[in-house]
Amino acid sequence: MSERETRKTKRVVIVGMGFGGIRAAQCLADCGLEVVLVDRNNYHLFQPLLYQVATAGLEQESIAYPVRALIRGWKNLSFRMTEVTGLSLEDRYVQTEAGGIAYDYLILAGGSETNYFGNKGVEQHAFDLKRLPDAESLRNTILGIFEQAVQVRDPELRRQLLTFVVVGGGPTGVEFAGALSELIRYVFRKDYPTLDLDESRVILLEAAPAILLAMPEKLREYAKKNLERMGVEVRCNTMVADAGPGTVTLAGGEVIVARTLFWSAGVKAAPLAGMVPGDKGPGGRIPVNPDLSLPGYDGVFVVGDMALVMQDGKPLPMVAPVAMQQGRYAARAILQREQGGQPEPFRYRDKGSMATIGRSSAVATGFGVSLSGYFAWLAWLFLHLYYLIGFRNRIVVLLNWAWYYWFHERQVRLITTPECTEPVLPKENNHG
Amino acid sequence: MSERETRKTKRVVIVGMGFGGIRAAQCLADCGLEVVLVDRNNYHLFQPLLYQVATAGLEQESIAYPVRALIRGWKNLSFRMTEVTGLSLEDRYVQTEAGGIAYDYLILAGGSETNYFGNKGVEQHAFDLKRLPDAESLRNTILGIFEQAVQVRDPELRRQLLTFVVVGGGPTGVEFAGALSELIRYVFRKDYPTLDLDESRVILLEAAPAILLAMPEKLREYAKKNLERMGVEVRCNTMVADAGPGTVTLAGGEVIVARTLFWSAGVKAAPLAGMVPGDKGPGGRIPVNPDLSLPGYDGVFVVGDMALVMQDGKPLPMVAPVAMQQGRYAARAILQREQGGQPEPFRYRDKGSMATIGRSSAVATGFGVSLSGYFAWLAWLFLHLYYLIGFRNRIVVLLNWAWYYWFHERQVRLITTPECTEPVLPKENNHG
Repeated sequence: MSERETRKTKRVVIVGMGFGGIRAAQCLADCGLEVVLVDRNNYHLFQPLLYQVATAGLEQESIAYPVRALIRGWKNLSFRMTEVTGLSLEDRYVQTEAGGIAYDYLILAGGSETNYFGNKGVEQHAFDLKRLPDAESLRNTILGIFEQAVQVRDPELRRQLLTFVVVGGGPTGVEFAGALSELIRYVFRKDYPTLDLDESRVILLEAAPAILLAMPEKLREYAKKNLERMGVEVRCNTMVADAGPGTVTLAGGEVIVARTLFWSAGVKAAPLAGMVPGDKGPGGRIPVNPDLSLPGYDGVFVVGDMALVMQDGKPLPMVAPVAMQQGRYAARAILQREQGGQPEPFRYRDKGSMATIGRSSAVATGFGVSLSGYFAWLAWLFLHLYYLIGFRNRIVVLLNWAWYYWFHERQVRLITTPECTEPVLPKENNHG
Repeated sequence: MSERETRKTKRVVIVGMGFGGIRAAQCLADCGLEVVLVDRNNYHLFQPLLYQVATAGLEQESIAYPVRALIRGWKNLSFRMTEVTGLSLEDRYVQTEAGGIAYDYLILAGGSETNYFGNKGVEQHAFDLKRLPDAESLRNTILGIFEQAVQVRDPELRRQLLTFVVVGGGPTGVEFAGALSELIRYVFRKDYPTLDLDESRVILLEAAPAILLAMPEKLREYAKKNLERMGVEVRCNTMVADAGPGTVTLAGGEVIVARTLFWSAGVKAAPLAGMVPGDKGPGGRIPVNPDLSLPGYDGVFVVGDMALVMQDGKPLPMVAPVAMQQGRYAARAILQREQGGQPEPFRYRDKGSMATIGRSSAVATGFGVSLSGYFAWLAWLFLHLYYLIGFRNRIVVLLNWAWYYWFHERQVRLITTPECTEPVLPKENNHG
């Protein structure tokens, strides 16, 4: 690789501009090394708020930040929008659709994708929320469903249209079910005066005995009660066996007649993990050394959802705070290596977790404290301000969320691609 | 139609929720008649700002207003999102994909579509801006082009990528060319520090001897100078003969090597006009009576771009203010009919026209006054506030435009569907 020899400074390549990759990039800004950022999209996506876009609470631009805007002004950071097609770890370069990129250090932060656990029926018929187009597509579908329901006369057909099944009682499923229920009960009630919205159901299914298992029991109870108060039917100890166009079949045989199935019951490592040699752990995750380096390959680190890191006998969860701490750690480990040092093993500091339930309520736990209700929601808001440190326009971003959230509940109810509203149910013969 | 006989109140059906249809609906709110609004999309689109979405200055939700939000609270207005498939004017009902809708009065306000004047090559390869998805698609393409250009080594290939041809020197073409040039020179200069943006060209072609023909000569000169100062090459007396993937051929044979062709050189009546019996005028427009009613069919009115209305020996132009005045007129004509009166013939009051050139400059003419520069731009802003009267959330909408326009020049640079960035040029073999 004569190109590497002629380069004066060492190069770090970071694949993936999610939480792990972005945090690593921020920590390597102005560090003296050349840093090349790679992602198939040109933006960093704030995934936790995808459900807001899907339920018409925010628009896409509020939760996606162009990478080039984030790295402006830092001369050692550059970005290439391209897809990684392979990894040549012995020769130390990353293969992409735009050619190979040689590296001295590599941080793999490709994230995760939805795990359907091999269930083909579910995979074919379910919606999920991992990528930005998912959210707009789901929003268009939800709105389109109500537009169809207005024109449907057969009550059974209408109820099928208006029944939504959400699978997965973790924060994603809880937040989506809550926001969807609010959208229907508060916004659609006024938009669709001719519809009897009592015909609409939002059903949240969880295989475990309780939702939000990562939270203390008191908060789980609070969340469940709030969801039910908002009209969500919460069913625990319930597993989905199959799904078809218009039905969801539970283990045990019960069939729920529903047009829409939303799946947030599991994630697995992104396909990028499959390009890394070696055995994988559960969810396809890559086992790493205590310093997050890839065993057997010098200078390669894996962070975020793709990495399998054991702590206190359990794998670290696939959540944003873990990815952010690991991304920062990997960046610092590289800098320490350059200075001849050796980093301490990585240790995740769990600062708690949160889930919103509707517009002004949430549950939050951290630092030995449990919060619920409006204070938890405020804590959620401030925590995200903290998260945004390192983003130059963080105040603008936060104000934008607030602005949209409070003032634009009407604006975002657009069906931007009518193709998403193709009816999957037989048309009726209406005349009126 | 026994259904009509059993209805207690008369029904107005308005097809099309553009400027004409929305204005008619607003004037019929709380009027005692039942009003059914029909559109294939669930929003009213503020078309004049599509170019802002296409050049990453505004997001979609800023310029599209859900119809249901607009009509909330007015019990006599209802909306059906469906496509009109035919018109049965003798039997007085509109055929749609969701069934037939009977009417006592009908207002056709279907708008217009892009006119390629039969040029198949241009139609196949050009972008246009008439519908909301057009704008997002064009934005994704522009951003994707620059992401590709960063990774292209062949200078000829790169120049081809970075050359944009805009056809049509009316307000649409002028505004788009100006905004695109600003995006490249001010925003992309910082986002793509490795690109030599002097390689990028924005070329505005106009068949007539001057751009903005509807404006006084002094303003035309001003606009042309400003565009040139912003880096746009303005070529008048220039017609396009053909277009291919990567080239634009002028009448006379000159070939411009350009990846992107934008066509705003003409519009014609929407296909809905073809469902109306009778001969059509230029552009497929429907000749109407002096009271905008359709000859031979009682109770049917045609407004907006689809209507051919002669005034002072010339057809009225296909612009928003004409559609708005006609929509209001048709609504009032219906109310007068119901009270036994007869409306005066329609007469358009030309209050002037405007075009923006970049972020803080514009040309505007009206009431015998010509404005240019910053004051014209302010006039543009206030005129749009006036336009928004009738929209409940007009202050919010205007603030939103301002908010986005000034603060979010960075946010909207998202490529939301990477499929739009498929390279149409052969890939190179890069290694670095």
